[in-house]
Amino acid sequence: MTDIRRNVPVLEQLAVLKRGVVDLVTEEDLKTKLERGTPLRVKLGADPTRPDLHLGHAVILRKMRQFQDLGHKVIMLIGDFTAMIGDPSGKSKTRPPLTLEETRANAVSYLEQCKLVLRSDPEVLEVRFNGEWLEPMGYADIIRLASKYTVARILERDDFTKRLAAGTPVQMHELLYPLTQGYDSVALEADVELGGTDQLFNNLVGRALQRDYGQAAQVVMTLPLLVGLDGVEKMSKSLDNYIGLTDEAHEMFAKLMKVPDTLLLNYFTLLTDLSEARIEELLAGHPVTAHRELARAVTAWLHPEADLDAAEERYKAVAKGGIPENIPSVTVPTEELNADGVVGLFRLVALAGLEPSNGAARKLIQNRGLKVNGEAATDPQTAVTIPAEGLVLQKGKDKFVRLLPAT
Amino acid sequence: MTDIRRNVPVLEQLAVLKRGVVDLVTEEDLKTKLERGTPLRVKLGADPTRPDLHLGHAVILRKMRQFQDLGHKVIMLIGDFTAMIGDPSGKSKTRPPLTLEETRANAVSYLEQCKLVLRSDPEVLEVRFNGEWLEPMGYADIIRLASKYTVARILERDDFTKRLAAGTPVQMHELLYPLTQGYDSVALEADVELGGTDQLFNNLVGRALQRDYGQAAQVVMTLPLLVGLDGVEKMSKSLDNYIGLTDEAHEMFAKLMKVPDTLLLNYFTLLTDLSEARIEELLAGHPVTAHRELARAVTAWLHPEADLDAAEERYKAVAKGGIPENIPSVTVPTEELNADGVVGLFRLVALAGLEPSNGAARKLIQNRGLKVNGEAATDPQTAVTIPAEGLVLQKGKDKFVRLLPAT
Repeated sequence: MTDIRRNVPVLEQLAVLKRGVVDLVTEEDLKTKLERGTPLRVKLGADPTRPDLHLGHAVILRKMRQFQDLGHKVIMLIGDFTAMIGDPSGKSKTRPPLTLEETRANAVSYLEQCKLVLRSDPEVLEVRFNGEWLEPMGYADIIRLASKYTVARILERDDFTKRLAAGTPVQMHELLYPLTQGYDSVALEADVELGGTDQLFNNLVGRALQRDYGQAAQVVMTLPLLVGLDGVEKMSKSLDNYIGLTDEAHEMFAKLMKVPDTLLLNYFTLLTDLSEARIEELLAGHPVTAHRELARAVTAWLHPEADLDAAEERYKAVAKGGIPENIPSVTVPTEELNADGVVGLFRLVALAGLEPSNGAARKLIQNRGLKVNGEAATDPQTAVTIPAEGLVLQKGKDKFVRLLPAT
Repeated sequence: MTDIRRNVPVLEQLAVLKRGVVDLVTEEDLKTKLERGTPLRVKLGADPTRPDLHLGHAVILRKMRQFQDLGHKVIMLIGDFTAMIGDPSGKSKTRPPLTLEETRANAVSYLEQCKLVLRSDPEVLEVRFNGEWLEPMGYADIIRLASKYTVARILERDDFTKRLAAGTPVQMHELLYPLTQGYDSVALEADVELGGTDQLFNNLVGRALQRDYGQAAQVVMTLPLLVGLDGVEKMSKSLDNYIGLTDEAHEMFAKLMKVPDTLLLNYFTLLTDLSEARIEELLAGHPVTAHRELARAVTAWLHPEADLDAAEERYKAVAKGGIPENIPSVTVPTEELNADGVVGLFRLVALAGLEPSNGAARKLIQNRGLKVNGEAATDPQTAVTIPAEGLVLQKGKDKFVRLLPAT
């Protein structure tokens, strides 16, 4: 890990920090804060209801890391208290209430994943929970907080405007959440708040509230929402167009090789340190070369220990329809075999962990999603004998498991 | 004082309770609740920032008293907690924050005045303070409360709609107050809430919230806002078109004699028990007879001990330009006299307490608002000698003070 660079000239810091940024409110304020010469407090709000991070999150975490590399302190704010409340009206599926245990477990997993990108030493990483200041707040405190902001400004938020216009109910408490989130910035005395472009409004509330509470207003910096592998929608786990932060190196490499050409510039800018000149050069050349460079850079970043050549070899073998060398193996227990020493193919798929149940395994085969030793399977009931050298099951393009007989 | 009448048939109760009412949401619900046969809990929210009550308030207090006379329990709810918070944005002049001491002092004075109309025995009068349930509420409770109501419904309130349309700021906390007021009904398990027509919206919020909290919805009953002596504006102290609940009997009588003819029906209906037939008869007759009946009925109600004949005599004397018999007297200290034994007329006005300062006294005389022994005064500087029998100053039509020399 490289050392933290301190006292980097302000203009040089600005050049690094502005890369890939969409909104910067305001550059002037950021400059003034950097000129102060003391470390900035850089806030990122984490949603502990969604603990699975992907490259979309990594875009923002990279920016946080850039702040750390320049000696600034990043603050991961876990909304534990708000997560416990969730949406008490029960109308939002995106905000189911969590128990304190769930929230804490999610927070631990969230932070672990963040540390794949962030420096974890306490000088540049602070983790806070908003229950710290929300739990003791009373009615009078909330009235005082709410008095700082006008209804008109809250309703300017795009989704509120649209829902009210469409006659879709907006519950009163939803209006309080942006204020709460803004108050978090007051409590943390944040100098900068980072977020996706969808957080611009909320983070500007924080900026305004800090002024009302007599603090210097935080700089609001937004980064693009990364488009997923489908080339259309924002990367998200539920759309299955994502590359997980904890995906294995070979998986990550293979997925990156499939990024749509139109997104290459975006991915290079947001997920690598390649210079603009180099990116331009790559985009002008053959797309496979560009993809290869992207896949190597991102995989090396998130898996510093990985053997990139092996990952690439494996990708090529699979692309040609071959079977890669290092694949996981599962031994089939003898009690799974029937009197003739055979077992149903669907059962092997389930035992291999390629599908969660026998039913799902049957469906996979019926849908032509499985190969056995490279040949497409058609009948879930096929009786299979497992040879001593094993049998390779392949689900889709890149999921392989070798089944071995019990000895 | 008449006895409480219990077990009055529901239809008879309804007839009394509906008199003068503007909104009744719903009559069916009220009937059902009365049929229950147990005393209803009838809530009235009191604003301890405005402790001076007038006949406008008496309209609602009379209705509360009617409930008491039928054996129901009225609950005076003092918004002590909300008054202490006031309008923390400082933008509303109508909601200055009060200290706990001010709030309590106001509440005591408020309740004393209410008891001029209400029965005070605890079986039918309960006094509560909303700090009881608001003080212990935390952030999570408020989010839960807010989740019960939609933004669209809150914004339907007339003044919010108008202010938002006009671009006049509405602070977020103002949206929380109707919810709070509604929650008071939940905490009190109110069966009925009374208020002026301007409270219809807020009280319907309480009705809706009770349902959300699993209670039977309160009946909302509104009464007209009484028009003041100017015949145009709602009665209010600041417009000086009011008759105070604590005005002296002769003052009250005289003011009632000046109620505009167009308001007589209203005043009779809302402030007396006269039958519809009797009211009709009076309105068809000579207006002075109607005024006299109104003045006697209302004065007798609020000053049961008063000598109505004396009040009427005094009124007549003043109306003829005479000086009434029993008027307050003030002795002028010798140190106020100059070397010649005289004193400036303006100074006497101030000493008599007819104006708060010498400046205001000068202005009164310049504006031809003062008579001395029945003659209009013109010059504030007139040097006056006070004769042994005294000197009568008269401000307007009905304010008299006799000044006496020190002996």
